[in-house]
Amino acid sequence: MSHIKKTSQHLKSLDIFQPTIVLDSNKILSNIERMASKARSSGVEFRPHFKTHQSAEIGDWFRDFSVDKITTSSLEMALYFAENDWDDITVAFPVNILEIDKINMMAGDIKLNLMLDSVAVVTALEKQLKYPVNVWIKIDVGYGRVGIPWNDGAAIKNLFEKISRSHLMEFAGILTHSGHVYQATSTSEILRIHTQTVQRMNHIKNAIGADKCAISIGDTPSCSLIEEFTGIDEIRPGNFVFYDLMQENFGVCSAEDIAVAVACPVVGKYPDRRELAIYGGAIHFSKDYLIDHAGRKIYGYITYLKDERFGPVCKNGALVALSQEHGVIQVDDDLFDQISIASMVLIYPVHSCLTANLYLEYRTIQGKTITKL
Amino acid sequence: MSHIKKTSQHLKSLDIFQPTIVLDSNKILSNIERMASKARSSGVEFRPHFKTHQSAEIGDWFRDFSVDKITTSSLEMALYFAENDWDDITVAFPVNILEIDKINMMAGDIKLNLMLDSVAVVTALEKQLKYPVNVWIKIDVGYGRVGIPWNDGAAIKNLFEKISRSHLMEFAGILTHSGHVYQATSTSEILRIHTQTVQRMNHIKNAIGADKCAISIGDTPSCSLIEEFTGIDEIRPGNFVFYDLMQENFGVCSAEDIAVAVACPVVGKYPDRRELAIYGGAIHFSKDYLIDHAGRKIYGYITYLKDERFGPVCKNGALVALSQEHGVIQVDDDLFDQISIASMVLIYPVHSCLTANLYLEYRTIQGKTITKL
Repeated sequence: MSHIKKTSQHLKSLDIFQPTIVLDSNKILSNIERMASKARSSGVEFRPHFKTHQSAEIGDWFRDFSVDKITTSSLEMALYFAENDWDDITVAFPVNILEIDKINMMAGDIKLNLMLDSVAVVTALEKQLKYPVNVWIKIDVGYGRVGIPWNDGAAIKNLFEKISRSHLMEFAGILTHSGHVYQATSTSEILRIHTQTVQRMNHIKNAIGADKCAISIGDTPSCSLIEEFTGIDEIRPGNFVFYDLMQENFGVCSAEDIAVAVACPVVGKYPDRRELAIYGGAIHFSKDYLIDHAGRKIYGYITYLKDERFGPVCKNGALVALSQEHGVIQVDDDLFDQISIASMVLIYPVHSCLTANLYLEYRTIQGKTITKL
Repeated sequence: MSHIKKTSQHLKSLDIFQPTIVLDSNKILSNIERMASKARSSGVEFRPHFKTHQSAEIGDWFRDFSVDKITTSSLEMALYFAENDWDDITVAFPVNILEIDKINMMAGDIKLNLMLDSVAVVTALEKQLKYPVNVWIKIDVGYGRVGIPWNDGAAIKNLFEKISRSHLMEFAGILTHSGHVYQATSTSEILRIHTQTVQRMNHIKNAIGADKCAISIGDTPSCSLIEEFTGIDEIRPGNFVFYDLMQENFGVCSAEDIAVAVACPVVGKYPDRRELAIYGGAIHFSKDYLIDHAGRKIYGYITYLKDERFGPVCKNGALVALSQEHGVIQVDDDLFDQISIASMVLIYPVHSCLTANLYLEYRTIQGKTITKL
C-alpha cells in the first residue's frame, strides 16, 4: 500500500475526520535542539518567540534545552505563559499603553521586558507603571514596520536618556526584527541583510554609549542560516519550531524540518481538471501563499507519513485555491489515482504561524492532543 | 473635535483597548431587510448563508423578516444553529462522509439538506444514513471549485437517477455557487455571469426532467445587483449581511452598507514615512487584499463613526501591510495629525467572512456583546 494511502488510514485510526493541525513532535524537538545548541556554542541568549506555537505544553519542551526566557507578541500571550510558570518574558510588540492594567498585573510577578520606540509611550509608562520593568528600544534596521530608523541617532539617544531618567524603567538594550529578509530572493541576500543588521545595531550601541546595552535580533531565516552568532547578545526566532513551506522555499530549512501539517478530508474528485476538493479552506490554512514556477498561487503541498514522520514536499499535489472552507488541490495522474473521496490527506502549510493560530489545539502524529492558547 | 477623534473616544468609553470586531446593527438590519424584501417580491425562497456572521443572535434578527430556512458551510455550524432552533438547514458544502455521525445526529431532528456531486458519496450515504435527508446536486456553472460541470449532462442524469432510487434521500434540486463572479471586473460582467448561470441551471433542470427540481443559487454580488429574480427558486447569499471593501470595490454595495469594522489601537507613528503602526494584524483581519490604483496591496481602509453609524471609506488611511499582530497604515498629513499613539481607529476589512471568523464575539457600536460560534 502506498504511503499516501497508509497516511489516510493512520489519520482515520486517530478519528481525524475534519481539518486538523498535526505535529511531528520529533521534528520539533530536533528543531529546538539545533537552535538551542547553536545559541549555546555562540554564547548568545536564546529567547525563543512563542507566538508560533502558542502552547504551554510545547513551551515546556524548550525547558529541556535550558530555555528559561521567552518572547511573546502580545500581553495576552505573555499572561498565558506567565500563568504557565514562565517568569522572564519579552513582549516583542510596541507597548500598547491602553493595556497598562495587564502590564502592571504581570510586572509585579515576573521579569517583564517591554519594547517601545517613542517618547510618548515612555511618558505614559512613567505615569502609570506600578512595578519595575525592563525596556528595550525598538530599532528599524530597514524593515519599515515599527521602530526608530537605525540612522536617526538623535531620536534613539533622546529616547535612551528619557528611559534612563525613569525610576521604574531599566534600560535593557536595543532590539530589532529584520522582517525584510522575507523579501530576499536568495540565502546570500538573507545573510547580507543579517550582516547589515548586526553592523547597524552595533553602530547604535556605540552611539548610545551606555554601560549596559544588549543587542537582540530575531528572525528565523537569519537565525537558521547563521552558523555562529557574533556581535549580538540575544536571538528571538519563533517560526523555526515548526518551519513551513515559505522557509523551505527560501532555502532556510529542508522538508525534513517541517514539523506541522494540516490533515484534510477529500470531498470531491474532478477527473477532467485533475483536481481534488478538500474540506480545508482559508479558515484552516490562512491566505499566505507562494508563487510557483508556473505562476500559480500555492497555499500548501501534499506530504505523507513515512516511518511515523512527515515526509517530502509533494509538488505534484498543490493546494492552489482556498475559499472559506474549501480547498482545491491540483494533482498529477499518480496522486489522482491514489486519492479517493473520503481519503484523508496531509498538507504542509505555507506559513505555520498563521495556520497554527487558527486552531484551538494540536494533534501529534501519534494522536496525542496538545492544548494551546 | 473631529469624527476620527470622537470615534477613538467612543471606543475607549466601551473599554475597547485591543483589536475588536465591531458591528453596525442598524446597517445589518437594513441589509437583511433589503435582501429579504427583494426575495419576497420576486417570489423566491430566501435561505441566507450564515457562514459570514456565525452568530445565533444575529441569526435571530433574520426571523423578524420571516426567514425560517438557512444555509451553513459545515456540519459543525449546522449543529450550532440547530441547537439554536433552526430546523431547516442546507449544508452548502460537499458531504464529508467521514462525518456521517453528525449527519445522522441532525437528520433525525431537523430538515437537513445535503449537497453532493458524486456517485461515491450517494453510495456511502445509502449505506450509512439512518434518517431521511433532502439532497441537492451541486453543479459547477464555471467556477471550477466543486460540482459536476454543467455541460456533463450524462453524469448529472446518472446521479439524479441514483438519488431517486434511494429510499432515505429525497431529491431537492440543483444548487450552484457562481464564485467566478469574484473574478469579474465590472458589475455588467457579474450580471452576465448571473444570466449565464440561470440559463445553464435551467438547461440542466430540463434535461433531468424531474417532477420536482428546484434551482438554488447564492452569491452576494449577483443577489445584490439583480433587481428581480427570475428562473430560480432559491437564493443563498451570505456576505451581504456585513458586506466589506471587496464588495464595495466591485460596485456591489456602497460604503453606507458596510456593517463591520475592526477597532485597533495605534501603537506607533512614523513621520518620515507618514505611517501608523496598529495593534491589528493578519490574525485580526485575514490576508485577503485588494490592489489599489498605485499597485499597493490593501487590507483595509479607515472609517469613523458619524451619528452612531460607520462612515465613509477613508482612502487616505490605507492598511497596506499585515504581519501576525502588526498592521501598517499609510495616511495623508491630515489623518497623521488627527491620530496619536494610543488612539483607537476603526478599519473596514476587505473580506468580512474571513475577518469575522477570527473572533469569538462581536461588539456593537453601542457596546453590546454578541456571541458567535
